[in-house]
Amino acid sequence: MTASRLPEILERKMLARSRLFGIEELKLRFSNGVERVYERLPVKGHPAVIVVAVNEQRELMLIREYAAGFHEVQLSLPKGAAQLGEPLEEAANRELAEEIGFAAREVRFVKRVTLAPGHMGFTINIMFARDLYPHKLPGDEPEPLELVKWPVDRIDELIHGDEFNEARAIAALTLTRNLIEEI
Amino acid sequence: MTASRLPEILERKMLARSRLFGIEELKLRFSNGVERVYERLPVKGHPAVIVVAVNEQRELMLIREYAAGFHEVQLSLPKGAAQLGEPLEEAANRELAEEIGFAAREVRFVKRVTLAPGHMGFTINIMFARDLYPHKLPGDEPEPLELVKWPVDRIDELIHGDEFNEARAIAALTLTRNLIEEI
Repeated sequence: MTASRLPEILERKMLARSRLFGIEELKLRFSNGVERVYERLPVKGHPAVIVVAVNEQRELMLIREYAAGFHEVQLSLPKGAAQLGEPLEEAANRELAEEIGFAAREVRFVKRVTLAPGHMGFTINIMFARDLYPHKLPGDEPEPLELVKWPVDRIDELIHGDEFNEARAIAALTLTRNLIEEI
Repeated sequence: MTASRLPEILERKMLARSRLFGIEELKLRFSNGVERVYERLPVKGHPAVIVVAVNEQRELMLIREYAAGFHEVQLSLPKGAAQLGEPLEEAANRELAEEIGFAAREVRFVKRVTLAPGHMGFTINIMFARDLYPHKLPGDEPEPLELVKWPVDRIDELIHGDEFNEARAIAALTLTRNLIEEI
């Protein structure tokens, strides 16, 4: 299948819209003539970042926060949405300050990844942060998050264990592994 | 934040339902008394699998398929939903047969991962498959998928490159790396 064989969009219709989400229906005709109705969630809002931050003691900065999708408290990485016009590096630093009370002197973009591209347009930008210093900003969280410092030498235990289950966080640690090892 | 400090669900309401998705609104009261309205996408449908399959030539079996979320053809791993009552191992083998024309004599469950747990209840089960043999089943794809065989020795190039961007697929390769290396 090549780019020239993208299906033709015959019709598109928004089935529902809420504050955060939309559901769109696409009527498609594939190059072999087959017609299908697909549903997808288009992107809403600003770009998002997920941040792998490592301190000078070679610890990852993890958070425990409420995950409404499961009504559970879960272990993950700091993350959030950029504000209008805010560069990704600044968004990463602001989220760190809001969520864990640190900022980084060095922040870099690593890769933009998708979640479930067959059904959703959502992406998140993986960022790497080092050279941390204390810096607290008030965030939009309903209550303070728990900071969990995790030794870099135990990353394999973290990603294979049963407490750290978010695919994009596992991908973020994988894609920054070479940068983490340099510290 | 501990499990005992989960917010209380004051109200829940389905804002929209479609064939594939629902949007639910939760009114929450956190342990510090702060009240917030959240939106989430609850799980619909059967469990899903994403399959890392490796042949005897030490090649990963990748697919190129239409991704409606981006209206693009994208490189990823075979995946799909289990049928009613179908064990995950059988679902993985059926998806391989439908999508790439192979089945595996050895299939194992590796880990269940989440996508965006703050906003969605979706999960996918990472499966590892080896000892492949040709076996084709008709699938529900509108047109045949392109099979791309990728040498195991070039996994780092794949996950860091710009053609393979799905976080759960990168997580799947990471979490099966030790199994892949045994082949």
